[in-house]
Amino acid sequence: MTGQDPSPLELTTAVTNRPGWASSVGIRVVTAEAGAVEMVLDRRADLVQFNGYFHGGVITGLADHAAGGAVSTALPPSRVAVTIDLHINFVQPADGDVLIARGRAVNIGRTISTAVVEVASSNHVGEHECALVVATLRAVGSPPP
Amino acid sequence: MTGQDPSPLELTTAVTNRPGWASSVGIRVVTAEAGAVEMVLDRRADLVQFNGYFHGGVITGLADHAAGGAVSTALPPSRVAVTIDLHINFVQPADGDVLIARGRAVNIGRTISTAVVEVASSNHVGEHECALVVATLRAVGSPPP
Amino acid sequence: MTGQDPSPLELTTAVTNRPGWASSVGIRVVTAEAGAVEMVLDRRADLVQFNGYFHGGVITGLADHAAGGAVSTALPPSRVAVTIDLHINFVQPADGDVLIARGRAVNIGRTISTAVVEVASSNHVGEHECALVVATLRAVGSPPP
Amino acid sequence: MTGQDPSPLELTTAVTNRPGWASSVGIRVVTAEAGAVEMVLDRRADLVQFNGYFHGGVITGLADHAAGGAVSTALPPSRVAVTIDLHINFVQPADGDVLIARGRAVNIGRTISTAVVEVASSNHVGEHECALVVATLRAVGSPPP
Repeated sequence: MTGQDPSPLELTTAVTNRPGWASSVGIRVVTAEAGAVEMVLDRRADLVQFNGYFHGGVITGLADHAAGGAVSTALPPSRVAVTIDLHINFVQPADGDVLIARGRAVNIGRTISTAVVEVASSNHVGEHECALVVATLRAVGSPPP
Repeated sequence: MTGQDPSPLELTTAVTNRPGWASSVGIRVVTAEAGAVEMVLDRRADLVQFNGYFHGGVITGLADHAAGGAVSTALPPSRVAVTIDLHINFVQPADGDVLIARGRAVNIGRTISTAVVEVASSNHVGEHECALVVATLRAVGSPPP
Repeated sequence: MTGQDPSPLELTTAVTNRPGWASSVGIRVVTAEAGAVEMVLDRRADLVQFNGYFHGGVITGLADHAAGGAVSTALPPSRVAVTIDLHINFVQPADGDVLIARGRAVNIGRTISTAVVEVASSNHVGEHECALVVATLRAVGSPPP
Repeated sequence: MTGQDPSPLELTTAVTNRPGWASSVGIRVVTAEAGAVEMVLDRRADLVQFNGYFHGGVITGLADHAAGGAVSTALPPSRVAVTIDLHINFVQPADGDVLIARGRAVNIGRTISTAVVEVASSNHVGEHECALVVATLRAVGSPPP
């Protein structure tokens, strides 16, 4: 304990690395600042559907996690965002080796906030958007560390 | 090969048991008839978020799978449904030991169909609704078995 | 002022009849009890799109109003529900003479509530579902009467 | 009839000015190019809710119209986009004198397309975002002129 608040990147990474779904599938935080995060997830055999593309639930879980990060980094340190509802459009197949989720807070309210997450599917030849997410989140007290 | 089409339950179970996300998390098909399915998923340490509740991505993945089953069982045998977009409301905490997803087709179109999935969180004292999902799906040719 | 609280039907009708969009398009409240309302809207030339069907915005507006009624009737008298976000699926053409919106509260929380509205399109030969709505609402202090 | 295809602006304006909801509320097309449109709508007493803000159904109807324009302008001339489903987040009160909807196609498919619409509320002191919309649309044959 140094008395310094953790940076948004430290905070988001710590939440991501806790035991649970996000760390078990291997989500990694690339960047995090107040109101914006970027996270990536590598393809694994247990994360795809019958056609070898990332499963919709995995894409949604990554996007949900990024939405939470984008809003939580913009809230006061004692508050964290939980998702109330989420809408996802699967605009192109997630046929790449890596998913990249770029989340940003669109509106931060005292109680209710909104985030948008664009998810890209990437491989060695490039990336293309695969999903677009709008999430509504609610600020609650932070869980104990 | 007997020349008989598989039943909706056989078909849905076979799709669920293929290698990939659905089988790796342990989704089990309880019932499946044309236009309606019930599936369950047991809690595991790698499927929860920091507070021990099922992760939103896992709930969404189960619901997405149930939506696909509810529509695919109502399509001709050579067609299968893939999700275009999905909306999920997290109405209560998924704090139980088991998720139960009950999906039903609301409308079956030649190309576009709609499904509703109610997800309950269950433990030894009972169950309560934890998420409500509306999904829009598109019929495509079945993948090879 | 008799000291009696207005009934859900009186309350919902009064809100609907205030000057503004709902009364100007002609929404009528058929039934209202705590957590459930039914409202209807007749077709008019200024409420349709190019093909003569009810416009998506009109269907959404009716459904939004019904969602607000379904939740507000279940809140304490001093509270009213406003919509945070709304998802609508247009499942069949709204080609009838009358829209019928049946809204019900799925979950009533202290701050956040969820409502589902099924909208049917009706004419002299029968009715069919034309839209399915899930709305997330927030309780705020009632406006002055 | 000159044999020249109408421009995206001419096409979108013509569709908007047809008898029906869009023209009756007064939607005006400001700009339209392939895949992107801007439309505005002035406040009127019959377009607001009890608090004087634009009604959610009116905001949604404008956004739906803009989504249709953004996609239809990117389709071949013989095709037009109709909305399958739509998600709207009301991020701030629509308390201005004018609504401005800026729609853009995110993905154009042979059958299914996706559009995002940002709606701003504007008055003499400035504008702020009031709603964010993601819509899924389907290409159908154009109606006769």
